[in-house]
Formats: sequence, structure tokens, C-alpha cells
Amino acid sequence: MKTQVAIIGAGPSGLLLGQLLHKAGISNIILERQSPEYVLSRIRAGVLEQGMVDLLRKAGVADRMDAEGLVHDGFELVFAGKRQHIDLKKLTGGRAVMIYGQTEVTRDLMTARKAAGGETFYNVENVSPQDLKTERPCVTFEKNGETVRLECDYIAGCDGFHGVARQSIPADALKIFERVYPFGWLGVLADTPPVNDELVYAAHERGFALCSMRSPTRTRYYLQVGAQEKVEDWSDQRFWDELKCRLPAELADRMVTGDSIEKSIAPLRSFVVEPMQFGRLFLVGDAAHIVPPTGAKGLNLAASDVSTLFDILCKVYKEGREDAIEQYSAICLRRIWKAERFSWWMTSMLHAFPDVDAFGQRIKETELDYFVGSLAGRTTIAENYVGLPYENVE
Amino acid sequence: MKTQVAIIGAGPSGLLLGQLLHKAGISNIILERQSPEYVLSRIRAGVLEQGMVDLLRKAGVADRMDAEGLVHDGFELVFAGKRQHIDLKKLTGGRAVMIYGQTEVTRDLMTARKAAGGETFYNVENVSPQDLKTERPCVTFEKNGETVRLECDYIAGCDGFHGVARQSIPADALKIFERVYPFGWLGVLADTPPVNDELVYAAHERGFALCSMRSPTRTRYYLQVGAQEKVEDWSDQRFWDELKCRLPAELADRMVTGDSIEKSIAPLRSFVVEPMQFGRLFLVGDAAHIVPPTGAKGLNLAASDVSTLFDILCKVYKEGREDAIEQYSAICLRRIWKAERFSWWMTSMLHAFPDVDAFGQRIKETELDYFVGSLAGRTTIAENYVGLPYENVE
Repeated sequence: MKTQVAIIGAGPSGLLLGQLLHKAGISNIILERQSPEYVLSRIRAGVLEQGMVDLLRKAGVADRMDAEGLVHDGFELVFAGKRQHIDLKKLTGGRAVMIYGQTEVTRDLMTARKAAGGETFYNVENVSPQDLKTERPCVTFEKNGETVRLECDYIAGCDGFHGVARQSIPADALKIFERVYPFGWLGVLADTPPVNDELVYAAHERGFALCSMRSPTRTRYYLQVGAQEKVEDWSDQRFWDELKCRLPAELADRMVTGDSIEKSIAPLRSFVVEPMQFGRLFLVGDAAHIVPPTGAKGLNLAASDVSTLFDILCKVYKEGREDAIEQYSAICLRRIWKAERFSWWMTSMLHAFPDVDAFGQRIKETELDYFVGSLAGRTTIAENYVGLPYENVE
Repeated sequence: MKTQVAIIGAGPSGLLLGQLLHKAGISNIILERQSPEYVLSRIRAGVLEQGMVDLLRKAGVADRMDAEGLVHDGFELVFAGKRQHIDLKKLTGGRAVMIYGQTEVTRDLMTARKAAGGETFYNVENVSPQDLKTERPCVTFEKNGETVRLECDYIAGCDGFHGVARQSIPADALKIFERVYPFGWLGVLADTPPVNDELVYAAHERGFALCSMRSPTRTRYYLQVGAQEKVEDWSDQRFWDELKCRLPAELADRMVTGDSIEKSIAPLRSFVVEPMQFGRLFLVGDAAHIVPPTGAKGLNLAASDVSTLFDILCKVYKEGREDAIEQYSAICLRRIWKAERFSWWMTSMLHAFPDVDAFGQRIKETELDYFVGSLAGRTTIAENYVGLPYENVE
């Protein structure tokens, strides 16, 4: 079997890259370990930066998002018991974010791929990218017990943090940067109206809380919990009680509670691998970097990687510029590190840390107080939240 | 002996408070453990914020500063081997800093106090503030072997970090916030022309370096050194060699070296005590808080404390507003914590830390890169460097 670009992983980044390549007339095949149903069952992010929104429009998969997504011009920070508004639109000269679940993005991309006749192999096993440093790399995999060899020009590893793409690069060719936080997020999805028109990020001495949403009738709420906590110990009632406790009374009082549709605990981690390329294999999104969810950067970073890789592949196939591939890692990493910094900062500022000393605690409080109180400080928060600009490929 | 305000310490904050009170017709006496010569021999800060410059003018002691001081509209940050200009004037709507040594400020204030006939007792021993929670506090001290009792309405503790003022407050009435950094600054004063028109703050993998100055012919240079380093181990030659090594070639090449006039190592510490008041005793400047020198905030914070205390004492004596004294600590601490944050941040960003991990190191590099590269980020640096506004007394 042969294609120009082999894509490992049919999550949003693999599908988005496939769709962009397809529209540009570059052939591609996607390999996915799971079933489509499984991929769609994963509850993930829901805040899209302007850059990602624009990219989805460019890919021709934005109709439902534009009809059903919620444009948010701002969000709220709560600390010292007070609600502070971050006016994204005013502070960034008109930019905003779009509330639209990752699951819905994935669904729209699946639909588009099916309509375009793009090939996706689901439920494949033993995926193995090979001959990465040659001009003819390939990916072998098993489908229904048979081994298949997919020959290609380039391989995009869009298969997430635990995927095979990064693992297929020799360990001594990669440098790992990592920070594990001493807590996790307990998330609940519920069919209740959001407590507030905008997202609310709340710092509280009992721990961080986030009031997010997926639609006007579906909420996604989170609580900072200890790293060792188990989801079984959190009844819906306990979750709602604790959430209300961490919010200002005027929000807690009007919160509508309900049965959870999904409830899970995720650890918080910062992770970057350098470089993001090995020969003709490119790592995209979570395969190369993880951010803690504070700041909503994970999916958006995957989108900017996709955008950069797509631009590079266009140069290769349209202009014969094979040299362009050497830019991939450096271009991506500049933006990724800035997003890592912002996510680390938001996490550090808003969460309760078990081992912080008195000085560190006051510095944290002062940092929030200064950054939110100063126009320049607020602007740094806003410009990072809506997403720093994508960098062009030379 | 009797006065309205007893001031402990004849450094710049004690003298400045005395001068302002004198001009307002409020009587005061200053007590100082050392000789005037000793006080003037201490080499300290040299960067005055706009707010302090204005305060010195208001106190009528600015003539020489205005004639001889150097107005700096910007400074340089060096990291990743590149020089980056921070245009203070443009970024803050016209504000700047004044280069004028603390020693010179002290000398001008001493001259003014002598001219005004203000009483200062030098070389006093066993200074002891007493009856702080009563309406008639006093300070006892020994002068030439005799014990003297100075009765007063209020006491200003301007006697520095190691002074008696803070120590005279019961320990359980104070909360301490502290951070000790794992390095110190080796400073050299030399009669050489400055290597650059503006100050240069340089981050280097071997450690931080600062090229400062006191005048067009006198330089003050610093090197980050290990906490255990001894000044005897640093010949002038070794100092200049190491300094050049931490600067970009175009600066190192044009550096003029010379014999050191003064050479010393100072530890770096962040320290704040809360509250800054106990009954009728007010802690001012270093008596209540220490910042690491990165960011040049120490002397300037003392000046804003003096300004706040002076405004409060004017309300007390001119308007009978004794209640105003309760605002002192809260007003000062809001500004102090922001300066502590900035000093901590500048220190954290620019110094080499012995125990930083790979992720932390990249975050540090990215933080500098983002803040200097973003207009909003640069503005946060500039507005803090020139000094946040003084807060009014209600």
C-alpha cells in the first residue's frame, strides 16, 4: 500500500491534517488503534483559540462549529473571594475563543473525511513506523490478523502521549522536559445550564475549581483533587458540595446541579520532547508535548503543529522545497514553549500547592493581584489565552 | 527630652522623613548608632524611581541630584547572548529612573538637616523604643555613658534589617515571610567609565552580571557568586575576567577595567514582616522588608514607606486625624509585595540556580523570551522598574 503522508492516529490532529492535505491534493492514509466510537467517547478540551477556529474554517469543517459553537469574548478569574473579568476582546484588539467540544470537532472531521473518501484504518494493531532516516519510510501494521506495509514519503505521529510514534525514535535522539504536579483534576460532565455566561477559573485555599461548558445546556466542571484521590470516592453530591464551597456565594447560590454523565480524574503534567522530528517522522500534538489543562492549550497546540506541518508539506509537494521540513521542530517548539509557560503559570497561580511556604504563597497572591490589576499584566493573560500568533514557514 | 516624632536611624529613610517633617513644621529627633562618616561609607543602591525623585524634590534636597544625576530612559537585558533594550520612557508614557548613588542622597540629606538645625544624635548606644502601645511612647538611649529618655508621640523605625526597631516588637505580633537565595552578589566600585550608557542586566549560564554606574566616571559592577564565596578569593583581575566572560563580546571588548575602590559580597534575600506597625512604632524600609537588589527596589521602597508615613503624620498633626495611622501597614504592604514580586521575578529569571531541572530552565528562558518579546510583557517589566504609583492616604 502506498500514500504520500502516513498519519498515525485518528484523533482531531490526525484527522485535521488529513483533511487539509486532502484539500491540497496530497494523498494520505490514517491508521488508528481504536474504533471510531472509542475515539468519540473521549471527553477532552472545549476551548478553541482563534487560530484553530481559522484553521478549521480553512479545512472546510467549520459549518457546525460556526452554527453551534459559543464565542466567548472573556472569562473570569476568581481569587481572594473576588470575581475579576478578563476582557479578551478588548485586551487583544478583537480576538476571542470558541467554546466547542473536542468530541464535536472530531465528529465533524470524521464526517468530512468520509465525504471526501479519505482512507482511515481503524482497529489496527502493532503499528510500527520504520526506515525513518531514509527517503522511503514506511509504517507496518496488522489489520484483521494480516500484516500490511504502508509505504510513504512522510509520517505524521498524531497518536498522543502514549502512542507509538515518539517511542519509535531512539531515546538518545530526544531530550525530555517534564514537570508532574502534585494534584489532579476531577472532571464532571452534566446536562445542566452553565452557572455563568463565561468560564470561571477560581483559586481557593481548598483548591482550584473551573466552571466550563460545552453548550448552553451542558456543563463541564472541574475540581483540583489530591494526586491519590479515587473517582469512586466522589459521589455527585460530594462533587457539587465541594465545587460550591470553592466559588463565591453569588455563583454557588445559582448553580444548577444534576447527574453526572461522565466523571474522571486526570493527572496534571507538563511535558515537552525535543526535537519533534526524526528523519521523516514528525511528532504532532500530545505525541510531543503535554500541558496541564489550565489555560486550555492542549488541543490548540496540536492545531498549530498541524498548521505548521501542513504548510511545510505544501512547500515540499507544491514547490519542491524538501529543505522546508528541517524547520518543523524549531517553529513548533517556539510556540509550544510559550504555551507551556502560560499553562505552567496559570496552573501555578491558581492551584493550592501542598508544600508552598509563606513567602511563596504571598508571591502567588501578589502575582495574580498585580497581573489582573495592571492593564499590561491583563494583556499578557489575554494574549496568551486567545493564543499567540502562528509562525510562518520560510 | 521631648519631640513629636522620634526617628531611629540616620540612613536615607530616617533623614528623608526628618526633612519632610521639618518642612511641615513637625518636630523630630534622629538617633543613630554609628558616626556620620560610617553611614556615608556604606555603598548601596544607585537607581532612583521617579516617585523617589519627586519626593526628594518635595523635601527640597534635589538640587545636586538634578544637576549631577543621570536620567536613564531605558536599560538593557542580555540573555541567550543577545542584548534587548527596555525603553522605559516609551513603555510607561514618559517615566524614567535617575542614577544617583544612595551615598549622595544621604550626604545631601545630612547637609539639609544641618542647615535646618535638625537634631541628630550620632554614636548613641542601647537605643530602646518603649511603651509602644500607650499614647506616650518614648525611646531611651545612651550618649557618652549617660542614659537619655526621649519622649514622643510616634516612633519611626528607620534602622534597617538588623536594627532594634523590629526587634522591640513582640515576636508573636509579627509574621515573617522570607526567601534566602542560594547565591550572593560580589560588587566592585571602580573609577572607570561605564561600559554602556544604560545599565546592563545579563543572564549567563555562569551566573548573572550587572553593569551599573554611579556617574560618567564611576562604575558599579556585580557578579552572581556562590553563597560560600569569599571576597579575598576575588582579585580585581579575576573579577574583570569573569565579568567579561558573562557579557556579549561587543560589551566585553570595550570594557575599561581599573583598581577596585570597594569590593564586597552581599547575600540575596527576600524578607517581609507583617504588620509594619505596633502601636505607635512604625517600621520603615529595610527594618520591615528586604528585596534582592535585582530590580533596584530597596531604597525606593524605603522612600515610598517614608512618603506614606509622612502623609499620615501630616493628617494626624494638621487635621487631628489620629485614626489615619491605622492605614500605614496596609498601604505600604500593597506596594511592597508588588516590588517583592518584581524583585523575586527579576532574580529568578536572570540568575543561574544550582538546582533547576531541565523543564524549569526552559520555562525561565521562555519567560524572558516571552516577556521581552511581547509589548504587554515588556510593559510589565518597565512599569515595575520605574516604580508603581504611590498610594494615597485616605
